[in-house]
Amino acid sequence: MQVAVPLFPRMTALDAIGPYEVLQRVPDIDVVFVGERRGEVRTENGMLGLSVDATFADIPSPDVVVVPGGIGSRALLAGGPLVDWVRAAHPGTRFTTSVCSGALVLGAAGLLDGLTATTHWGAFDVLARFGATPVTQRVVEHLPERIVTAAGVSAGIDMALRLLELLVDDVAAQAAQVFIEYDPQPPFDAGHPSKVSDEVRARLAEYRTVRS
Amino acid sequence: MQVAVPLFPRMTALDAIGPYEVLQRVPDIDVVFVGERRGEVRTENGMLGLSVDATFADIPSPDVVVVPGGIGSRALLAGGPLVDWVRAAHPGTRFTTSVCSGALVLGAAGLLDGLTATTHWGAFDVLARFGATPVTQRVVEHLPERIVTAAGVSAGIDMALRLLELLVDDVAAQAAQVFIEYDPQPPFDAGHPSKVSDEVRARLAEYRTVRS
Repeated sequence: MQVAVPLFPRMTALDAIGPYEVLQRVPDIDVVFVGERRGEVRTENGMLGLSVDATFADIPSPDVVVVPGGIGSRALLAGGPLVDWVRAAHPGTRFTTSVCSGALVLGAAGLLDGLTATTHWGAFDVLARFGATPVTQRVVEHLPERIVTAAGVSAGIDMALRLLELLVDDVAAQAAQVFIEYDPQPPFDAGHPSKVSDEVRARLAEYRTVRS
Repeated sequence: MQVAVPLFPRMTALDAIGPYEVLQRVPDIDVVFVGERRGEVRTENGMLGLSVDATFADIPSPDVVVVPGGIGSRALLAGGPLVDWVRAAHPGTRFTTSVCSGALVLGAAGLLDGLTATTHWGAFDVLARFGATPVTQRVVEHLPERIVTAAGVSAGIDMALRLLELLVDDVAAQAAQVFIEYDPQPPFDAGHPSKVSDEVRARLAEYRTVRS
């Protein structure tokens, strides 16, 4: 089973690495990082380089697609090689999925029209432009349509565990979860804007790469 | 503030990328990925390449060190450039930290002798060899000694939020948490071996790169 994760400039690393880490140890699954050209891409702030190992043309028929987000996704929405690849791959996949603002790429490929979907809370307005109905939910799945979308950044870990359950079984998912010791204990209950104070929201507005 | 994250062959990517994603947007923090030499290192199974941007010699005095784990950490325990760098950097850091079996590197550097510490559940026996007392806890902190260790893989996210609270304040930590939408909803309660069935443990034993 081939899982393809596209990488692009100014992406958010954890969107891709969370699902990769869940899926990569299952003996029947190979994860391949694809992109417009082989070589390094850098994340939003330039602080991290990740390697693209295969071009879109090299991987025309992946079984699963996991599209990460990040502010770099905004530059892709007018169309281009990634959107074209997702659109062409989707009819042959078992699941076409996204994490965070990766949902916008699925939207641009025309895959979310008429469906509920989720994305990073900061991208709900853009998602709606593609005919999707944004919903505040950790993971949104449409099994007949083979489309699964996850909320922001860390939600890709939860989504990938569910994907393993769908692709293999619940034992496989639990085995992955125990390996990555995913027994989360966040020190705050601050995982969504609705849960934090104005002071926290003001601080966030000062952070790097929060707005494109 | 400079946060240095060493990368090495056969590491576990999420150990490093979880903390990076928490810390990287704070305006005063720069995260730099260091290693024995610049260029790509590959994770346990070879499926992912990450870029080392600076050598250990380039970054002699980081403010914070976050050492990831992975089965590749086992090859480092006899000593070598990473262990030497951690030992030399520690007296000048605000915090010297580890995720997963990265704790073994701190142990090999002599930093855990006489302390409680945590690591991936599969590495408890090795950790004890370095004079540490392994404890089953998500994050173990020794503030006078400036040593913080996290449990396996995904625990680095929880640790990094706590580090932000210590380095800046709780508002900074919550702002990072809301940005990465860390409102975890794992589909199973399977985050530790004590929580899963024999069937799950047997499946895990078939997974790739679970044993070195």
